Amino acid sequence: MTTQPTLALAHFVAAADPRRLPSEVCHEAKRALLNFLGCAIGAAHHDAVTRALAALAPFAGPPQATVLGRPERLDCLHAALINALASHTFDFDDTHLATIIHPSGPVAAALLGLAEYLPVTGADWIHAFALGVEVECRVGKAVYPSHYDIGWHITGTAGVFGAAAATGRLLGLSEGQLVWALGIAATQASGLREMFGSMSKPLHPGLAARNGMVAALLARENFTSATEGIEGRRGFANVLATARDYGRITDGLGETWELSANSYKPFACGIVVHPVIDGCLQLRSEHQLTADAIAAVELSVHPLVLELTGKKTPRVGLEGKFSVFHSAAVALIDGAAGEAQYSDERVSNPRVVALRERVVATVDPALAEDAAQVRIRLRDGRVVERFVAHALGSLARPMTDRDLEDKFRTLCAPILAADAIDGLLRACWQLEHNPDAGALPRLTVPQRHGAAAFA
Amino acid sequence: MTTQPTLALAHFVAAADPRRLPSEVCHEAKRALLNFLGCAIGAAHHDAVTRALAALAPFAGPPQATVLGRPERLDCLHAALINALASHTFDFDDTHLATIIHPSGPVAAALLGLAEYLPVTGADWIHAFALGVEVECRVGKAVYPSHYDIGWHITGTAGVFGAAAATGRLLGLSEGQLVWALGIAATQASGLREMFGSMSKPLHPGLAARNGMVAALLARENFTSATEGIEGRRGFANVLATARDYGRITDGLGETWELSANSYKPFACGIVVHPVIDGCLQLRSEHQLTADAIAAVELSVHPLVLELTGKKTPRVGLEGKFSVFHSAAVALIDGAAGEAQYSDERVSNPRVVALRERVVATVDPALAEDAAQVRIRLRDGRVVERFVAHALGSLARPMTDRDLEDKFRTLCAPILAADAIDGLLRACWQLEHNPDAGALPRLTVPQRHGAAAFA
Repeated sequence: MTTQPTLALAHFVAAADPRRLPSEVCHEAKRALLNFLGCAIGAAHHDAVTRALAALAPFAGPPQATVLGRPERLDCLHAALINALASHTFDFDDTHLATIIHPSGPVAAALLGLAEYLPVTGADWIHAFALGVEVECRVGKAVYPSHYDIGWHITGTAGVFGAAAATGRLLGLSEGQLVWALGIAATQASGLREMFGSMSKPLHPGLAARNGMVAALLARENFTSATEGIEGRRGFANVLATARDYGRITDGLGETWELSANSYKPFACGIVVHPVIDGCLQLRSEHQLTADAIAAVELSVHPLVLELTGKKTPRVGLEGKFSVFHSAAVALIDGAAGEAQYSDERVSNPRVVALRERVVATVDPALAEDAAQVRIRLRDGRVVERFVAHALGSLARPMTDRDLEDKFRTLCAPILAADAIDGLLRACWQLEHNPDAGALPRLTVPQRHGAAAFA
Repeated sequence: MTTQPTLALAHFVAAADPRRLPSEVCHEAKRALLNFLGCAIGAAHHDAVTRALAALAPFAGPPQATVLGRPERLDCLHAALINALASHTFDFDDTHLATIIHPSGPVAAALLGLAEYLPVTGADWIHAFALGVEVECRVGKAVYPSHYDIGWHITGTAGVFGAAAATGRLLGLSEGQLVWALGIAATQASGLREMFGSMSKPLHPGLAARNGMVAALLARENFTSATEGIEGRRGFANVLATARDYGRITDGLGETWELSANSYKPFACGIVVHPVIDGCLQLRSEHQLTADAIAAVELSVHPLVLELTGKKTPRVGLEGKFSVFHSAAVALIDGAAGEAQYSDERVSNPRVVALRERVVATVDPALAEDAAQVRIRLRDGRVVERFVAHALGSLARPMTDRDLEDKFRTLCAPILAADAIDGLLRACWQLEHNPDAGALPRLTVPQRHGAAAFA
């Protein structure tokens, strides 16, 4: 194995044998795909998606690929952009905790577009997806955390490598062409954390998906780039980071899989609040709690919780995601913390506001980031409490397949009929047996009632 | 005037009055456009252009816009990408010397695409072009040189701001929308110097043109970004540079024009060799020199000349551009140093090689960068010499309009018939009187002989 990281990744992608993909990695790829699809379909009519579509559709090419959860079709490149954008819009997509990359968006969106353009089997799709996530996360690990600390949104900057590698694999690029594809990816790496809080944040994985595919398409035509796009003196890692470790790219390449370290959010808000929500949901369920019965909610939390989500009186839905007080209140009242709990209506609902004002939070520096203590004083004098050592969704307590299905159903319910959701779930879980991966995105298109009746 | 640079630029672009554009700036815009068109048309069949076109055409949208010098038509976004790429392929485009940005490519390519999509008068086109170059060069000045020294190809990273501002102006964006457009530009800023020497170098202005237009199109639909894309804590200037001076963005905005500091290359190679070529051409012309008559060529040059172009025995055309010896030899033999003098054939031509071997160069640290001494010893014992204080093309000795026309004719000759070239020249010089700027790019399309005969 060479120690030149760009060449090593190109060799890995070109030479990888699909039969050597471990079955648990194949399964994790399907879990990631399911989560990606749910997030993208759920956000299909969000303003960010609708506005981007309105802006770009007049320039789009042939209707090659599906816009997930919508009737429109776009060329592969624009479909990749819109679908990856949609998947990150709720900030409810997956997280590679070692780099805080949201890995699936750029890779899955690019690959789904391509799968409607080229003949791609389900098994090859899954393999290319695993390779893309591997490249993306390893590039990210090589420059994390200095790269992120400078101000780069690593989901965008690393994502373009993943999309280039994955689509390059399906396009049948040679090792040399993959070196160029990674170079063309490197020179497009972009996305600033300054954009957090605006629609341009989810635009980053959208651009990464499209740009990575452009890189692979150019390389296929022998459009050249530098050969050391990652490690060159003026390459990605030297220009966009202050420290770098190429061993994190090359060590164990082909033996370990970053997908195995992927995580999924059970709740539609920042991960630091998840232990609190988890504890509230457990207590509500076990004790049949209602808001009226609750006198006070006392939380002990990691210091980051108040630093990042200490907003006492959120006024709009998005601000609710940055309020541990709102999150505890909706968890106790609604028994959920999905996208619906972070609407403008929900943060100003009188019952939610009333309970939110009875929540207090105290920092306990001894707590781990994925831990919290929830203590609830009831009006009848009882006290119930729960210590959450590892929140649901953490690597120590991953969401089960069933949890992911429930999340998927909730996200898709406003868009798709129940039987369509069931069909999509089946198609996801059985993807490696499907001779045509391109059939999958078409299942996300809502059928009009009339058409469905005659289908 | 606010001191927030993003807002200041947005205000400037939204509020600018075309009637206040000084006539000399209008003229300089047409000189820049002419030079841009010549470079792009001349490279229309270069491998970099042909391969990029082959890679992306299957995904292109409606045939809205001209590919300069070719019969194909693409959607505006892809046309902008290909045309800006073409314009930088020979590295023969313009240079804003204070930042070494090649300013016209990203801005002109984006605007020409848009001018075939929207109704745009010639006068509005020129005004938008001047605004785009102004934004691009001012953003560049704010971060130059640290930004370039880190490894960023400033033509790509600053170019995207220029394309966003210029197209945003023609799309009629409000000040607030222009703030978003500049933010979406900032978060796409990319392009690594590692790519120098590969096709991905000219790709940078191509991507800047397309990405800047995408930024403006998104902003028009109220797709939001951060409001301090340039100066924010994690914005462009803090993340992509180690030093920054926002006064260079805001000082004199609307009063001075960066286009006035634009320069054009008379010779198709790195600017450091230009004084030597200039001196050789002058001596050849005055003394009717032939290669056979020359015993030796002795050059005194600035230290950078040998550092950057000290290649004694270039083997391919591109390497010839990095050889002061080859450049002097072709200037003396061909009486020119255009793209034709840097072909693979020319660097291995026996007469060129023989004269090249009689060229010696000595460093003189006392010389200015745009100066050189050329001394030629003839076989008949005579010595002729010329001191060039400022090379042709420098700000002190700019190319005349006639020089630019000659360069344009030479670049276009392999692609267009003589009368088509004449028509294009007339259309450029009269652009401010043309009610339809979109007619201009269509004049660059080669007519088949049969069609021309019946036209």
